[in-house]
Amino acid sequence: MSDVEYETSHDRPVRRRRAPKGEKRREALLDAATAVFAEHGYEAASMRRVAERVGITPVGLLHHFPNKTALLEALLARRDRRVTEKFAALEMAPTLDGFVAFAVMSLRFSVESRQECQAAMRINVESLSSEHPAHVWQQEKFALTHDHARGHLRQLIEVGEVRSDVDVDAVVTEMFAVMDGLQIQWLRSQGEVDAVAVFDGYLRRLAEAIRREGAGA
Amino acid sequence: MSDVEYETSHDRPVRRRRAPKGEKRREALLDAATAVFAEHGYEAASMRRVAERVGITPVGLLHHFPNKTALLEALLARRDRRVTEKFAALEMAPTLDGFVAFAVMSLRFSVESRQECQAAMRINVESLSSEHPAHVWQQEKFALTHDHARGHLRQLIEVGEVRSDVDVDAVVTEMFAVMDGLQIQWLRSQGEVDAVAVFDGYLRRLAEAIRREGAGA
Repeated sequence: MSDVEYETSHDRPVRRRRAPKGEKRREALLDAATAVFAEHGYEAASMRRVAERVGITPVGLLHHFPNKTALLEALLARRDRRVTEKFAALEMAPTLDGFVAFAVMSLRFSVESRQECQAAMRINVESLSSEHPAHVWQQEKFALTHDHARGHLRQLIEVGEVRSDVDVDAVVTEMFAVMDGLQIQWLRSQGEVDAVAVFDGYLRRLAEAIRREGAGA
Repeated sequence: MSDVEYETSHDRPVRRRRAPKGEKRREALLDAATAVFAEHGYEAASMRRVAERVGITPVGLLHHFPNKTALLEALLARRDRRVTEKFAALEMAPTLDGFVAFAVMSLRFSVESRQECQAAMRINVESLSSEHPAHVWQQEKFALTHDHARGHLRQLIEVGEVRSDVDVDAVVTEMFAVMDGLQIQWLRSQGEVDAVAVFDGYLRRLAEAIRREGAGA
Protein backbone atom coordinates (compact mmCIF):
# COMPACT_ATOMS: atom_id res chain seq x y z
CA MET A 1 0.00 0.00 0.00
CA SER A 2 1.52 3.32 -1.00
CA ASP A 3 1.67 6.45 1.11
CA VAL A 4 -0.82 8.03 -1.19
CA GLU A 5 -3.43 5.32 -0.79
CA TYR A 6 -2.95 5.36 2.94
CA GLU A 7 -3.41 9.07 3.04
CA THR A 8 -6.49 8.98 0.84
CA SER A 9 -8.16 6.20 2.82
CA HIS A 10 -7.75 8.17 6.03
CA ASP A 11 -8.95 11.42 4.65
CA ARG A 12 -11.51 13.22 6.79
CA PRO A 13 -13.43 16.27 5.65
CA VAL A 14 -12.97 17.97 9.00
CA ARG A 15 -9.18 17.98 8.85
CA ARG A 16 -8.98 18.52 5.07
CA ARG A 17 -5.48 17.08 5.00
CA ARG A 18 -5.62 15.30 1.66
CA ALA A 19 -5.62 18.23 -0.70
CA PRO A 20 -2.63 20.14 0.67
CA LYS A 21 -0.66 16.98 1.37
CA GLY A 22 -1.53 15.49 -2.00
CA GLU A 23 -0.57 18.76 -3.63
CA LYS A 24 2.75 18.78 -1.82
CA ARG A 25 3.46 15.21 -2.91
CA ARG A 26 2.52 16.11 -6.46
CA GLU A 27 4.95 19.05 -6.43
CA ALA A 28 7.69 16.80 -5.05
CA LEU A 29 7.02 14.33 -7.87
CA LEU A 30 7.27 17.09 -10.47
CA ASP A 31 10.55 18.24 -8.90
CA ALA A 32 11.81 14.67 -9.08
CA ALA A 33 10.71 14.40 -12.71
CA THR A 34 12.57 17.63 -13.47
CA ALA A 35 15.75 16.16 -11.99
CA VAL A 36 15.36 12.89 -13.91
CA PHE A 37 14.53 14.65 -17.20
CA ALA A 38 17.53 16.97 -16.70
CA GLU A 39 19.80 13.95 -16.30
CA HIS A 40 18.30 11.53 -18.84
CA GLY A 41 15.86 13.50 -20.98
CA TYR A 42 12.22 12.52 -21.23
CA GLU A 43 12.54 9.61 -23.60
CA ALA A 44 15.15 7.69 -21.62
CA ALA A 45 13.67 8.61 -18.22
CA SER A 46 12.04 5.88 -16.17
CA MET A 47 9.00 6.29 -13.93
CA ARG A 48 10.69 4.01 -11.41
CA ARG A 49 13.56 6.47 -11.03
CA VAL A 50 11.15 9.37 -10.46
CA ALA A 51 9.30 7.37 -7.79
CA GLU A 52 12.57 6.37 -6.13
CA ARG A 53 13.70 9.98 -5.78
CA VAL A 54 10.60 10.74 -3.73
CA GLY A 55 10.73 7.45 -1.87
CA ILE A 56 7.41 6.06 -3.07
CA THR A 57 6.55 2.96 -5.05
CA PRO A 58 5.95 3.09 -8.82
CA VAL A 59 2.31 2.31 -8.03
CA GLY A 60 2.18 5.34 -5.77
CA LEU A 61 3.52 7.46 -8.63
CA LEU A 62 0.89 6.07 -11.02
CA HIS A 63 -1.75 7.22 -8.55
CA HIS A 64 -0.72 10.81 -9.34
CA PHE A 65 0.36 10.40 -12.97
CA PRO A 66 -1.01 7.41 -14.89
CA ASN A 67 1.92 7.44 -17.33
CA LYS A 68 5.10 9.28 -18.31
CA THR A 69 3.28 11.48 -20.82
CA ALA A 70 0.93 12.69 -18.07
CA LEU A 71 3.96 13.49 -15.93
CA LEU A 72 5.54 15.46 -18.78
CA GLU A 73 2.31 17.34 -19.45
CA ALA A 74 1.95 18.28 -15.80
CA LEU A 75 5.55 19.47 -15.79
CA LEU A 76 5.05 21.65 -18.87
CA ALA A 77 1.79 23.03 -17.44
CA ARG A 78 3.58 23.93 -14.20
CA ARG A 79 6.34 25.65 -16.13
CA ASP A 80 3.79 27.61 -18.20
CA ARG A 81 2.05 28.67 -15.00
CA ARG A 82 5.28 29.78 -13.35
CA VAL A 83 6.48 31.68 -16.42
CA THR A 84 3.12 33.43 -16.72
CA GLU A 85 3.24 34.42 -13.03
CA LYS A 86 6.76 35.77 -13.31
CA PHE A 87 6.07 37.77 -16.44
CA ALA A 88 2.76 39.08 -15.12
CA ALA A 89 4.76 40.91 -12.46
CA LEU A 90 7.03 42.48 -15.08
CA GLU A 91 6.18 45.66 -16.90
CA MET A 92 7.68 46.46 -20.24
CA ALA A 93 8.27 50.15 -20.86
CA PRO A 94 7.23 50.95 -24.47
CA THR A 95 10.80 51.82 -25.36
CA LEU A 96 13.76 49.99 -26.84
CA ASP A 97 15.47 50.05 -23.45
CA GLY A 98 12.31 48.59 -21.92
CA PHE A 99 12.38 45.82 -24.53
CA VAL A 100 16.03 45.06 -23.74
CA ALA A 101 15.39 45.01 -19.97
CA PHE A 102 12.47 42.62 -20.51
CA ALA A 103 14.61 40.26 -22.60
CA VAL A 104 17.40 40.25 -20.02
CA MET A 105 14.90 39.46 -17.27
CA SER A 106 13.51 36.63 -19.33
CA LEU A 107 16.95 34.99 -19.66
CA ARG A 108 17.53 35.61 -15.95
CA PHE A 109 14.42 33.52 -15.22
CA SER A 110 15.78 30.71 -17.41
CA VAL A 111 19.05 30.40 -15.52
CA GLU A 112 17.65 30.54 -12.00
CA SER A 113 17.84 26.79 -11.53
CA ARG A 114 20.34 24.50 -13.20
CA GLN A 115 17.99 21.52 -13.04
CA GLU A 116 14.99 23.38 -14.46
CA CYS A 117 17.14 24.89 -17.19
CA GLN A 118 18.72 21.58 -18.17
CA ALA A 119 15.39 19.74 -18.18
CA ALA A 120 13.88 22.51 -20.32
CA MET A 121 16.80 22.45 -22.76
CA ARG A 122 16.69 18.68 -23.08
CA ILE A 123 12.96 18.69 -23.74
CA ASN A 124 13.43 21.58 -26.18
CA VAL A 125 15.92 19.61 -28.27
CA GLU A 126 14.27 16.18 -27.82
CA SER A 127 10.99 17.61 -29.02
CA LEU A 128 12.50 18.49 -32.40
CA SER A 129 11.36 14.96 -33.26
CA SER A 130 7.79 15.28 -34.46
CA GLU A 131 6.67 12.22 -32.50
CA HIS A 132 7.84 13.59 -29.16
CA PRO A 133 4.91 14.28 -26.78
CA ALA A 134 6.16 17.85 -26.20
CA HIS A 135 6.60 18.57 -29.92
CA VAL A 136 3.36 20.51 -30.40
CA TRP A 137 3.65 22.30 -27.06
CA GLN A 138 7.19 23.41 -27.91
CA GLN A 139 6.24 24.51 -31.45
CA GLU A 140 3.38 26.57 -30.02
CA LYS A 141 5.57 28.07 -27.31
CA PHE A 142 8.18 28.90 -29.93
CA ALA A 143 5.61 30.59 -32.20
CA LEU A 144 4.01 32.47 -29.31
CA THR A 145 7.20 33.92 -27.82
CA HIS A 146 8.57 34.85 -31.23
CA ASP A 147 5.28 36.49 -32.26
CA HIS A 148 5.26 38.40 -29.01
CA ALA A 149 8.78 39.74 -29.52
CA ARG A 150 8.10 40.59 -33.17
CA GLY A 151 4.98 42.48 -32.14
CA HIS A 152 6.94 44.52 -29.62
CA LEU A 153 9.66 45.40 -32.11
CA ARG A 154 7.07 46.47 -34.70
CA GLN A 155 5.48 48.72 -32.09
CA LEU A 156 8.89 50.25 -31.40
CA ILE A 157 9.26 50.94 -35.11
CA GLU A 158 5.82 52.59 -35.13
CA VAL A 159 6.63 54.87 -32.22
CA GLY A 160 9.94 55.80 -33.81
CA GLU A 161 12.28 54.09 -31.35
CA VAL A 162 13.58 51.54 -33.87
CA ARG A 163 14.63 52.15 -37.47
CA SER A 164 11.98 51.10 -39.96
CA ASP A 165 14.44 49.21 -42.17
CA VAL A 166 15.26 46.70 -39.40
CA ASP A 167 14.59 43.07 -40.34
CA VAL A 168 12.33 42.23 -37.39
CA ASP A 169 12.14 38.50 -38.18
CA ALA A 170 15.92 38.17 -38.32
CA VAL A 171 16.45 40.16 -35.11
CA VAL A 172 13.96 38.02 -33.19
CA THR A 173 15.41 34.77 -34.55
CA GLU A 174 18.85 35.96 -33.52
CA MET A 175 17.80 37.05 -30.02
CA PHE A 176 16.16 33.74 -29.21
CA ALA A 177 19.15 31.90 -30.67
CA VAL A 178 21.46 33.77 -28.30
CA MET A 179 19.19 32.90 -25.37
CA ASP A 180 19.11 29.18 -26.17
CA GLY A 181 22.81 29.00 -26.94
CA LEU A 182 23.79 30.87 -23.78
CA GLN A 183 21.76 28.46 -21.67
CA ILE A 184 23.63 25.52 -23.20
CA GLN A 185 26.96 27.21 -22.47
CA TRP A 186 25.89 28.18 -18.98
CA LEU A 187 24.98 24.55 -18.31
CA ARG A 188 28.14 23.18 -19.93
CA SER A 189 30.43 25.57 -18.07
CA GLN A 190 28.82 24.69 -14.71
CA GLY A 191 27.72 28.29 -14.33
CA GLU A 192 31.16 29.70 -15.15
CA VAL A 193 29.77 31.53 -18.18
CA ASP A 194 27.83 34.59 -16.99
CA ALA A 195 24.96 34.13 -19.42
CA VAL A 196 23.04 37.19 -18.23
CA ALA A 197 26.04 39.52 -18.53
CA VAL A 198 26.88 38.26 -22.04
CA PHE A 199 23.24 38.59 -23.10
CA ASP A 200 23.09 42.11 -21.67
CA GLY A 201 26.21 43.10 -23.63
CA TYR A 202 24.81 41.54 -26.78
CA LEU A 203 21.48 43.34 -26.42
CA ARG A 204 23.09 46.73 -25.78
CA ARG A 205 25.06 46.35 -29.00
CA LEU A 206 21.95 45.21 -30.84
CA ALA A 207 19.96 48.16 -29.47
CA GLU A 208 22.62 50.62 -30.63
CA ALA A 209 22.46 49.15 -34.10
CA ILE A 210 18.68 49.19 -34.51
CA ARG A 211 17.85 52.40 -32.61
CA ARG A 212 16.48 55.16 -34.78
CA GLU A 213 18.84 58.10 -34.79
CA GLY A 214 17.79 60.68 -32.24
CA ALA A 215 15.53 58.23 -30.37
CA GLY A 216 15.75 57.39 -26.64
CA ALA A 217 18.88 56.40 -24.68
CA MET B 1 24.46 -16.08 -39.97
CA SER B 2 24.67 -12.39 -40.66
CA ASP B 3 25.72 -10.72 -43.89
CA VAL B 4 28.88 -9.64 -42.23
CA GLU B 5 29.93 -13.11 -41.17
CA TYR B 6 29.13 -14.45 -44.62
CA GLU B 7 31.21 -11.76 -46.20
CA THR B 8 34.13 -12.38 -43.89
CA SER B 9 34.08 -16.13 -44.33
CA HIS B 10 34.27 -15.74 -48.11
CA ASP B 11 37.02 -13.20 -48.06
CA ARG B 12 39.89 -13.97 -50.41
CA PRO B 13 43.14 -11.99 -50.44
CA VAL B 14 43.21 -11.93 -54.25
CA ARG B 15 39.89 -10.09 -54.58
CA ARG B 16 40.39 -7.95 -51.47
CA ARG B 17 36.66 -7.46 -51.21
CA ARG B 18 36.30 -7.45 -47.45
CA ALA B 19 37.91 -4.15 -46.61
CA PRO B 20 35.97 -1.88 -49.00
CA LYS B 21 32.70 -3.75 -48.48
CA GLY B 22 33.17 -3.88 -44.72
CA GLU B 23 33.99 -0.18 -44.79
CA LYS B 24 30.84 0.55 -46.79
CA ARG B 25 28.73 -1.42 -44.33
CA ARG B 26 30.37 0.39 -41.44
CA GLU B 27 29.58 3.77 -43.02
CA ALA B 28 25.97 2.66 -43.58
CA LEU B 29 25.74 1.67 -39.91
CA LEU B 30 27.09 5.05 -38.82
CA ASP B 31 24.54 6.76 -41.08
CA ALA B 32 21.80 4.64 -39.52
CA ALA B 33 23.06 5.50 -36.04
CA THR B 34 22.98 9.19 -36.96
CA ALA B 35 19.34 8.88 -38.00
CA VAL B 36 18.40 7.00 -34.83
CA PHE B 37 20.31 9.40 -32.56
CA ALA B 38 18.68 12.36 -34.35
CA GLU B 39 15.24 10.89 -33.65
CA HIS B 40 15.74 9.42 -30.18
CA GLY B 41 19.03 10.77 -28.85
CA TYR B 42 21.83 8.46 -27.78
CA GLU B 43 20.49 7.37 -24.41
CA ALA B 44 17.08 6.20 -25.66
CA ALA B 45 18.42 4.77 -28.93
CA SER B 46 18.38 1.00 -29.37
CA MET B 47 20.99 -1.04 -31.22
CA ARG B 48 18.16 -3.13 -32.66
CA ARG B 49 16.73 -0.06 -34.39
CA VAL B 50 20.11 0.83 -35.90
CA ALA B 51 20.52 -2.72 -37.21
CA GLU B 52 16.99 -2.71 -38.63
CA ARG B 53 17.63 0.44 -40.64
CA VAL B 54 20.49 -1.28 -42.46
CA GLY B 55 18.64 -4.59 -42.70
CA ILE B 56 21.06 -6.65 -40.64
CA THR B 57 20.61 -8.58 -37.42
CA PRO B 58 21.61 -7.13 -34.06
CA VAL B 59 24.38 -9.74 -33.99
CA GLY B 60 25.62 -8.43 -37.33
CA LEU B 61 25.76 -4.94 -35.85
CA LEU B 62 27.69 -6.18 -32.82
CA HIS B 63 30.27 -7.59 -35.21
CA HIS B 64 31.10 -3.99 -36.20
CA PHE B 65 30.37 -2.23 -32.92
CA PRO B 66 30.44 -4.34 -29.74
CA ASN B 67 28.15 -1.91 -27.90
CA LYS B 68 26.30 1.41 -28.18
CA THR B 69 29.19 3.38 -26.70
CA ALA B 70 31.51 2.03 -29.39
CA LEU B 71 28.96 3.11 -32.00
CA LEU B 72 28.80 6.61 -30.50
CA GLU B 73 32.57 6.87 -30.34
CA ALA B 74 32.92 5.84 -33.98
CA LEU B 75 30.29 8.42 -34.91
CA LEU B 76 32.07 11.21 -33.04
CA ALA B 77 35.42 10.16 -34.55
CA ARG B 78 33.89 10.27 -38.04
CA ARG B 79 32.46 13.71 -37.37
CA ASP B 80 35.82 14.96 -36.09
CA ARG B 81 37.49 13.60 -39.21
CA ARG B 82 34.97 15.22 -41.53
CA VAL B 83 35.12 18.58 -39.76
CA THR B 84 38.92 18.52 -39.87
CA GLU B 85 38.86 17.74 -43.60
CA LYS B 86 36.39 20.53 -44.34
CA PHE B 87 38.25 23.12 -42.33
CA ALA B 88 41.64 22.04 -43.71
CA ALA B 89 40.43 23.21 -47.12
CA LEU B 90 39.43 26.62 -45.69
CA GLU B 91 41.83 29.47 -45.37
CA MET B 92 41.24 32.24 -42.93
CA ALA B 93 42.48 35.62 -44.04
CA PRO B 94 44.17 37.34 -41.04
CA THR B 95 41.53 40.06 -41.04
CA LEU B 96 38.24 40.62 -39.25
CA ASP B 97 36.39 39.99 -42.50
CA GLY B 98 38.30 36.73 -42.87
CA PHE B 99 37.30 35.75 -39.35
CA VAL B 100 33.64 36.50 -40.13
CA ALA B 101 33.75 34.53 -43.40
CA PHE B 102 35.31 31.57 -41.56
CA ALA B 103 32.59 31.63 -38.90
CA VAL B 104 29.82 31.77 -41.52
CA MET B 105 31.34 28.81 -43.35
CA SER B 106 31.51 26.88 -40.13
CA LEU B 107 27.77 27.33 -39.50
CA ARG B 108 27.13 26.46 -43.14
CA PHE B 109 28.83 23.09 -42.54
CA SER B 110 26.59 22.50 -39.51
CA VAL B 111 23.36 22.94 -41.44
CA GLU B 112 24.27 20.86 -44.49
CA SER B 113 22.31 17.84 -43.29
CA ARG B 114 19.25 17.94 -41.07
CA GLN B 115 19.95 14.49 -39.65
CA GLU B 116 23.60 15.19 -38.87
CA CYS B 117 22.69 18.53 -37.33
CA GLN B 118 19.89 17.10 -35.19
CA ALA B 119 22.00 14.15 -34.00
CA ALA B 120 24.84 16.55 -33.13
CA MET B 121 22.51 18.90 -31.25
CA ARG B 122 20.92 16.07 -29.31
CA ILE B 123 24.30 14.65 -28.31
CA ASN B 124 25.47 18.18 -27.43
CA VAL B 125 22.59 18.70 -24.99
CA GLU B 126 22.43 15.09 -23.71
CA SER B 127 26.12 15.21 -22.91
CA LEU B 128 25.55 18.06 -20.44
CA SER B 129 25.04 15.18 -18.00
CA SER B 130 28.47 14.32 -16.66
CA GLU B 131 27.85 10.57 -16.95
CA HIS B 132 27.07 10.71 -20.67
CA PRO B 133 29.70 8.87 -22.76
CA ALA B 134 30.16 11.97 -24.98
CA HIS B 135 30.53 14.34 -22.02
CA VAL B 136 34.34 14.57 -22.05
CA TRP B 137 34.51 14.65 -25.87
CA GLN B 138 32.00 17.50 -25.98
CA GLN B 139 33.74 19.44 -23.20
CA GLU B 140 37.04 19.12 -25.04
CA LYS B 141 35.50 20.11 -28.37
CA PHE B 142 33.87 23.10 -26.67
CA ALA B 143 37.17 24.21 -25.09
CA LEU B 144 39.11 23.66 -28.32
CA THR B 145 36.79 25.60 -30.64
CA HIS B 146 36.38 28.43 -28.14
CA ASP B 147 40.15 28.65 -27.56
CA HIS B 148 40.69 28.69 -31.31
CA ALA B 149 38.24 31.57 -31.83
CA ARG B 150 39.63 33.50 -28.86
CA GLY B 151 43.15 33.11 -30.25
CA HIS B 152 42.07 34.49 -33.61
CA LEU B 153 40.35 37.48 -32.07
CA ARG B 154 43.40 38.24 -29.94
CA GLN B 155 45.57 38.14 -33.07
CA LEU B 156 43.17 40.58 -34.72
CA ILE B 157 43.56 42.89 -31.76
CA GLU B 158 47.35 42.62 -32.06
CA VAL B 159 47.37 43.48 -35.75
CA GLY B 160 45.04 46.41 -35.10
CA GLU B 161 41.91 45.07 -36.83
CA VAL B 162 39.90 44.80 -33.62
CA ARG B 163 39.64 47.32 -30.80
CA SER B 164 41.80 46.38 -27.82
CA ASP B 165 39.01 47.01 -25.30
CA VAL B 166 36.82 44.25 -26.77
CA ASP B 167 35.87 41.51 -24.28
CA VAL B 168 37.14 38.55 -26.30
CA ASP B 169 35.69 35.92 -23.94
CA ALA B 170 32.22 37.46 -24.09
CA VAL B 171 32.30 37.84 -27.88
CA VAL B 172 33.31 34.21 -28.39
CA THR B 173 30.71 32.94 -25.92
CA GLU B 174 28.10 35.00 -27.74
CA MET B 175 29.13 33.84 -31.23
CA PHE B 176 28.97 30.17 -30.32
CA ALA B 177 25.66 30.74 -28.56
CA VAL B 178 24.21 32.22 -31.75
CA MET B 179 25.48 29.23 -33.74
CA ASP B 180 23.94 26.66 -31.38
CA GLY B 181 20.68 28.55 -31.04
CA LEU B 182 20.32 29.06 -34.78
CA GLN B 183 20.77 25.35 -35.40
CA ILE B 184 17.94 24.60 -32.96
CA GLN B 185 15.70 27.11 -34.72
CA TRP B 186 16.67 25.84 -38.15
CA LEU B 187 15.75 22.32 -37.06
CA ARG B 188 12.52 23.42 -35.38
CA SER B 189 11.39 25.51 -38.34
CA GLN B 190 12.03 22.63 -40.76
CA GLY B 191 14.60 24.77 -42.55
CA GLU B 192 12.30 27.81 -42.81
CA VAL B 193 14.72 29.89 -40.75
CA ASP B 194 17.69 30.84 -42.92
CA ALA B 195 20.29 30.23 -40.23
CA VAL B 196 23.25 31.20 -42.41
CA ALA B 197 21.70 34.52 -43.48
CA VAL B 198 20.78 35.45 -39.91
CA PHE B 199 24.27 34.51 -38.70
CA ASP B 200 25.83 36.53 -41.48
CA GLY B 201 23.75 39.59 -40.51
CA TYR B 202 24.63 39.10 -36.85
CA LEU B 203 28.36 38.83 -37.59
CA ARG B 204 28.42 41.91 -39.81
CA ARG B 205 26.85 43.91 -37.00
CA LEU B 206 29.29 42.41 -34.50
CA ALA B 207 32.24 43.20 -36.79
CA GLU B 208 31.14 46.82 -37.14
CA ALA B 209 31.00 47.12 -33.37
CA ILE B 210 34.40 45.59 -32.59
CA ARG B 211 36.39 46.88 -35.59
CA ARG B 212 39.10 49.34 -34.69
CA GLU B 213 38.38 52.71 -36.23
CA GLY B 214 40.18 53.10 -39.52
CA ALA B 215 40.85 49.35 -39.86
CA GLY B 216 39.84 47.17 -42.84
CA ALA B 217 36.41 47.07 -44.53
